[in-house]
Amino acid sequence: MSWLQREIRLDPRPRGFHLITREVVGALQPELSEVQAGLLHLFIRHTSASLTLNENASPDVRDDFETWFNEAVDEDFRGWTHTFEGPDDMPAHIKASLLGSSITLPVRAGRFHVGTWQGIYLCEHRDSGGPRRLTVTAFGEGSD
Amino acid sequence: MSWLQREIRLDPRPRGFHLITREVVGALQPELSEVQAGLLHLFIRHTSASLTLNENASPDVRDDFETWFNEAVDEDFRGWTHTFEGPDDMPAHIKASLLGSSITLPVRAGRFHVGTWQGIYLCEHRDSGGPRRLTVTAFGEGSD
Amino acid sequence: MSWLQREIRLDPRPRGFHLITREVVGALQPELSEVQAGLLHLFIRHTSASLTLNENASPDVRDDFETWFNEAVDEDFRGWTHTFEGPDDMPAHIKASLLGSSITLPVRAGRFHVGTWQGIYLCEHRDSGGPRRLTVTAFGEGSD
Repeated sequence: MSWLQREIRLDPRPRGFHLITREVVGALQPELSEVQAGLLHLFIRHTSASLTLNENASPDVRDDFETWFNEAVDEDFRGWTHTFEGPDDMPAHIKASLLGSSITLPVRAGRFHVGTWQGIYLCEHRDSGGPRRLTVTAFGEGSD
Repeated sequence: MSWLQREIRLDPRPRGFHLITREVVGALQPELSEVQAGLLHLFIRHTSASLTLNENASPDVRDDFETWFNEAVDEDFRGWTHTFEGPDDMPAHIKASLLGSSITLPVRAGRFHVGTWQGIYLCEHRDSGGPRRLTVTAFGEGSD
Repeated sequence: MSWLQREIRLDPRPRGFHLITREVVGALQPELSEVQAGLLHLFIRHTSASLTLNENASPDVRDDFETWFNEAVDEDFRGWTHTFEGPDDMPAHIKASLLGSSITLPVRAGRFHVGTWQGIYLCEHRDSGGPRRLTVTAFGEGSD
């Protein structure tokens, strides 16, 4: 049984959806490459940003995510009462819960065992979210 | 390797979003405090209530969740055909899947290793949902 | 400690929400029946289909899911720019992230330890999605 628990700090990114697969894989070496069969849990320690898996090829998919979520969770919604942190704050909380604060992936033979087109998105819902902190926990059968 | 699997019964709560972090932590003692590094999985055994992580300080954030979800998943949507369990039933099912039936959290040094502002919400989508049953599974490296 | 990691191939299904609990349980025998207490992670290796847990009795609930999601994530939304894969493609990506690419369930005494009414849905968001591949990872305390 191999265990790995580690913090990853993501540099500030603009509001929108960002592909972070490569950065996450890099931060988990060399231990990830030793997990033969297991799971990886990626968790974001914030309430106004989120994580999801989606299409990793076309930047316009990520643009369309931003456009659709801004329309679906409107900053101008008349029902907001929690407004003192700015117009982007309450929509960010809703978006974060719609998308979720963690993803869990299968690991096999030292790699994420996901579909060809699946990439990890950091979903930054604030205008100025600052750096974001992730906690990664991986566990499984090791190679020895 | 430490394992813990336990049932938690939540008393009935009114429709809305409720902070239950303290109640969950309390129900997991003393075992949780012995996990040095691991994960905790919290699962709700219902299809018309859900769990999410979000802002734990301002009650108006939770009020705005209720307002927004009621607008987004409208009881008066003309497309509903499953109506015999009441107007709040079908919207409750949709909301439950949008938010999800489980959350998974990192555990470190005997505590939930989450962000300062992250609390656990019980999302009660029915007008009279009654008591709700959770199953908690925690596992990780113990202190010995 | 018992581990199980396995692929499941689901035959093509029409666009909509489909109950697959029985098929998943069948694919995990006999190993699942030997897990005394643990977790099961079910992961879909695609970005235009998803997994969720919801009501397992009434087919009209699943029909209403399809109706509501088609209204909420409209193929005719004017904001789409990623359109070259067809009008159902970009909505499928959004729906997949709203619902999620994996579910995690408690296992006890060799069975899914879920609520009476909870079933596993394959959410097929494409008009012609083809076969879908799942990866199941289960782990827990075995019976010996």
